[in-house]
Amino acid sequence: MTARTVAQKLLADHLVSGEMTPGEEIGLRIDQTLTQDATGTLVMLELEALGLHRTQAEVSVQYVDHNLLQTDELNAEDHAFLRSACERFGLWFSGPGNGVSHPTHMQRFGIPGKTMVGSDSHTPAAGSLGMLAIGVGGIEVARAIAGEPLMISMPEVWGVRLTNELSDWVSAKDVILEMLRRHGVNGGTNRIIEYYGPGLETLTAMDRHVIANMGAELGATTTVFPSDERVREFLAGEGRESDYVELVADEGAEYNVHEEIDLAAVEPLIALPSSPGNVVPVREVAGKDVEQVVIGSSANPGLRDFAVAAAIVKGRQVADHVSFDVNPTSRQGLQDLMKMGSAFDLVAAGARLHQSGCMGCIGMGQAPSSGGNSLRTMPRNFPGRSGTADDQVFLCSPETAAASALRGVITDPRDLPDLIGLSHPVLSLPTLSSVNTEMLVPPLPEEEAQQVELVKGDNISTMPELDPLPDRLELAVELVVGDNISTDGILPAGAKVLPYRSNIPKLAEFTFSGIDPEYAQRAAARRDEGGHAIVGGANYGQGSSREHAAIAPRHLGMRLVLAVSFARIHWQNLANFGILALELTDPADRDAVELGDVLVVEDVGEALAAGHELTVRNDTQGTEYRVRHRLSTRQVEMVRAGGLIPWLRAKED
Amino acid sequence: MTARTVAQKLLADHLVSGEMTPGEEIGLRIDQTLTQDATGTLVMLELEALGLHRTQAEVSVQYVDHNLLQTDELNAEDHAFLRSACERFGLWFSGPGNGVSHPTHMQRFGIPGKTMVGSDSHTPAAGSLGMLAIGVGGIEVARAIAGEPLMISMPEVWGVRLTNELSDWVSAKDVILEMLRRHGVNGGTNRIIEYYGPGLETLTAMDRHVIANMGAELGATTTVFPSDERVREFLAGEGRESDYVELVADEGAEYNVHEEIDLAAVEPLIALPSSPGNVVPVREVAGKDVEQVVIGSSANPGLRDFAVAAAIVKGRQVADHVSFDVNPTSRQGLQDLMKMGSAFDLVAAGARLHQSGCMGCIGMGQAPSSGGNSLRTMPRNFPGRSGTADDQVFLCSPETAAASALRGVITDPRDLPDLIGLSHPVLSLPTLSSVNTEMLVPPLPEEEAQQVELVKGDNISTMPELDPLPDRLELAVELVVGDNISTDGILPAGAKVLPYRSNIPKLAEFTFSGIDPEYAQRAAARRDEGGHAIVGGANYGQGSSREHAAIAPRHLGMRLVLAVSFARIHWQNLANFGILALELTDPADRDAVELGDVLVVEDVGEALAAGHELTVRNDTQGTEYRVRHRLSTRQVEMVRAGGLIPWLRAKED
Repeated sequence: MTARTVAQKLLADHLVSGEMTPGEEIGLRIDQTLTQDATGTLVMLELEALGLHRTQAEVSVQYVDHNLLQTDELNAEDHAFLRSACERFGLWFSGPGNGVSHPTHMQRFGIPGKTMVGSDSHTPAAGSLGMLAIGVGGIEVARAIAGEPLMISMPEVWGVRLTNELSDWVSAKDVILEMLRRHGVNGGTNRIIEYYGPGLETLTAMDRHVIANMGAELGATTTVFPSDERVREFLAGEGRESDYVELVADEGAEYNVHEEIDLAAVEPLIALPSSPGNVVPVREVAGKDVEQVVIGSSANPGLRDFAVAAAIVKGRQVADHVSFDVNPTSRQGLQDLMKMGSAFDLVAAGARLHQSGCMGCIGMGQAPSSGGNSLRTMPRNFPGRSGTADDQVFLCSPETAAASALRGVITDPRDLPDLIGLSHPVLSLPTLSSVNTEMLVPPLPEEEAQQVELVKGDNISTMPELDPLPDRLELAVELVVGDNISTDGILPAGAKVLPYRSNIPKLAEFTFSGIDPEYAQRAAARRDEGGHAIVGGANYGQGSSREHAAIAPRHLGMRLVLAVSFARIHWQNLANFGILALELTDPADRDAVELGDVLVVEDVGEALAAGHELTVRNDTQGTEYRVRHRLSTRQVEMVRAGGLIPWLRAKED
Repeated sequence: MTARTVAQKLLADHLVSGEMTPGEEIGLRIDQTLTQDATGTLVMLELEALGLHRTQAEVSVQYVDHNLLQTDELNAEDHAFLRSACERFGLWFSGPGNGVSHPTHMQRFGIPGKTMVGSDSHTPAAGSLGMLAIGVGGIEVARAIAGEPLMISMPEVWGVRLTNELSDWVSAKDVILEMLRRHGVNGGTNRIIEYYGPGLETLTAMDRHVIANMGAELGATTTVFPSDERVREFLAGEGRESDYVELVADEGAEYNVHEEIDLAAVEPLIALPSSPGNVVPVREVAGKDVEQVVIGSSANPGLRDFAVAAAIVKGRQVADHVSFDVNPTSRQGLQDLMKMGSAFDLVAAGARLHQSGCMGCIGMGQAPSSGGNSLRTMPRNFPGRSGTADDQVFLCSPETAAASALRGVITDPRDLPDLIGLSHPVLSLPTLSSVNTEMLVPPLPEEEAQQVELVKGDNISTMPELDPLPDRLELAVELVVGDNISTDGILPAGAKVLPYRSNIPKLAEFTFSGIDPEYAQRAAARRDEGGHAIVGGANYGQGSSREHAAIAPRHLGMRLVLAVSFARIHWQNLANFGILALELTDPADRDAVELGDVLVVEDVGEALAAGHELTVRNDTQGTEYRVRHRLSTRQVEMVRAGGLIPWLRAKED
């Protein structure tokens, strides 16, 4: 038997169909599922639509970590709905205040060697424990909950060898920023990133979480780390050493793609506005004014991330024009920070200590002023994601963030010894966490569960009906956009929009609102004429897993997206909701299409079945575009049926 | 010299005009001013409009405690604007996260014997230290900042004699709820409440803050306590013993109105939805399901209020369907709670620990579900104030709140020994507070201040121009409402509306939106035809001090309010913004007026000058109403000029 990497072992152990050749469609058995509230309400509605009896996964957990502001009754009603759905379908329920899904899941449920799908793009964070964890649209999670395998295109395995160890003032966040500096926001497309090498032993499991989490920003299918001593220590600290299983690459295992990072050479890095891929050394932008510094999110969730910030500001005061916002990861983590005195040090230094959750990371408050510089330890800084249309959000490590908060200007933390006489903090972290499972409500026994009625507030609609894709498409182009349009651009998150995640007709009004405020109205006006098309550039739909970014425009009549290339999860979401995604063979054609042009595809069914290439006619300009589709035979059927739900229903009939 | 009460001494010491006879207009010298962000942005714009050089008050402090959610750039831009205005006009700036204005002001700036006005209706809380502190509209604060005396109608002094001491499980909140149970939401109109008697010594200064704060709910002009040993202890604990001055009533001093409360007889009380006046014993509603429990706000801001809740839940878990929200009062208070371990106990028991500030008390998040019962230690439960239109908010003590959170149903805390074997907690509070003044930015020196430019984000408009009141009013009635309409009803607070407090045209769109969503549009459509009138019941405009509840409808063309009676601050705000407020002599006439009726007042100037009675004709019905106005000669001029700003400008010309 050939030597295998960790990723290959995980894939092989869960393979139920297909060949493990890059590009081939494979089916994987899924052990665990994760949903959060902003995507989970729809997953629960889908489970209802699918007529699910009870989850078939080993562990299914529904977290409430996004919609925590509760500016009106909608959030509280979503929480009640989700709780009732957990009771009904046999899921764990992690209530508001318990914590951010990814680190909380890692702490309470993560088990090396398991697979997981999550309706959140940062699900790969679980790769820190040697899991194969993939972010997908909600309906893919619904299918996994129903016991169906996950169908994906077999990715390449990208081996990243780590050597040496990080210098003082440099931490895991700088490692993933280094990857982003080298490869940009689509450098990981169709790849699993697997870290290995001698440098690994210097990174704790939570450090690895930081790196695995933000692998999503590289566009990777997922990230995996081996399960080794560091993982055993982590699980022991969570009182779960018995869940430890060793999982390491075989000697001589080969990676499809090779990379090496000398940890000792990594320096403090920062992503400039407004892309996680705009990475430069902190020194290049040092001295810029800072209005806000935010510590927290699933990209820097560890106790050490908060403790190091606390150690830096301890006994000092942040600059008085800086809003220093701290978002604890979880109730459990906050308990530890309080025991250690770190929470006190942060507050005494001027922190606004917020409730545990995603908060500003998903635009749930904490919006900066227009043009004001905000430094965040978060994973994303897509335009407007903070809640401020012309925001200036930078992404960095807790060390850089704390140093900059103290001085009120962007500061390389390595300069702190000279600037304020502070030597690099030596942290003393507890070996045992304040394990607190009281806010995790376990699944109801099966008999009791069957009696539960879903609690639906007025805002919780059922899934809209989806009609089949017509066999002749004649669609006006209602929007033309550029490269790297994120799902935040397609369907904004934030406190004003997220409450409508369970109400598609209302939600749809916000589609592309940050890019073209008139799009939604224009599109809706054309819905009864057969719908419309839009045209995009490369890496269309990067970012989050929200399937709402497909369902909402579909509700407005979108039937076709013509783009240079698609981000993985969003491409799948488009297919799942019956929107035809076609790639332009010649990227230059993108620039040729104009708003209002009428695009025609004749004999859609035949054209899709005939192969992966077809032609789209621009009737307005009298031209033609050669395009590709990446749909499997199964997926062609699904798209033609109008999406996964009508397709499954039709199969049942 | 006759024996005087504390209130009489405070009034006499600051009297600059008028006679201290109840009902007479008097002028008072003002020593201190308080503004918070939701009203303060307008105050700063008014200072700009008045051309202020520098504050003339001994101490002026601008707090940021309301608009803390920052769901878009508006809040952060308001904070920056307020900070620049503080620099410009010589005010202290208390930044976001530093704390709720009333307790923070008491801790850092309160001095016995001083007067204060504040653009917040709970300003009377400072009466806990023997101050005469009155909540007024923002422009009255602006005038005090400019060194002008406060003009008020001399109130009666209502002496409330306290005897004995409170039983276990009963606290200060129950005392003020007892007053509300006895007298309802307008029992205090035109009165200063003065507490005295042997029971006083059992109440700390912070307990007295609770009682003085919610005196606003009785409609009182203010509440005063003597400055005695308890006050000295409090100031010593804040490192300010040198600010202590004794101020007690003379022996034999006489009150205009008499009341007695036997503290030993007070039991746990609760205000039912949706008025602070709907008070019943907790036992009457015990057993009702609870969805949310919130601890915090200026109505229960003391360390003991949080510590007692922590002691009750310590080592236990709140019911898993309860959202247990904790809003620390201030950074300083949170530091103490952390040192004491109380913050840890709250979080470990399931608390969602939020940033320091008003939060849900002003509808800034924490909205419950429709119809879900929410217990809060806050001062107000007006309909919809929580952010949920059909909310069910109850007001109670921290003891009742914590007991109910634990059990998941409304619970009389006196039942805890039997129910869970918990004896009444004995608290050990620090004698010295964690004084932390680092987030209080002191005034700039005068020369530097003159150089400061106001930082105005795009949302910060200048004050709208106000035209004079026409001498003949012919106005259609655009709204008829019932008794006790609060300023929350007139102009909602909450996360969706508060960000527009510095943008009157936008803000006006929300006027009466919870009562009649079409009012604003209807009114605006008539603006160019000379405006409109509205008709109300008793205690019209109770609640907050927001002058926006006058300016916004004025912007929509409101020129006349006909009501059975008016709440004090709102009445003044109407006058300040040139809206004629007339009281119906016969309350039955309120029911006679119909929407759309055209009301006519002829020769307005002459009619107002001729005396306090006049006639309003209903041309639609062919009837007449006898009405009263309470304007002084000065105020008649002001209303006719269109309000205070145009009146002052005209005087300057």
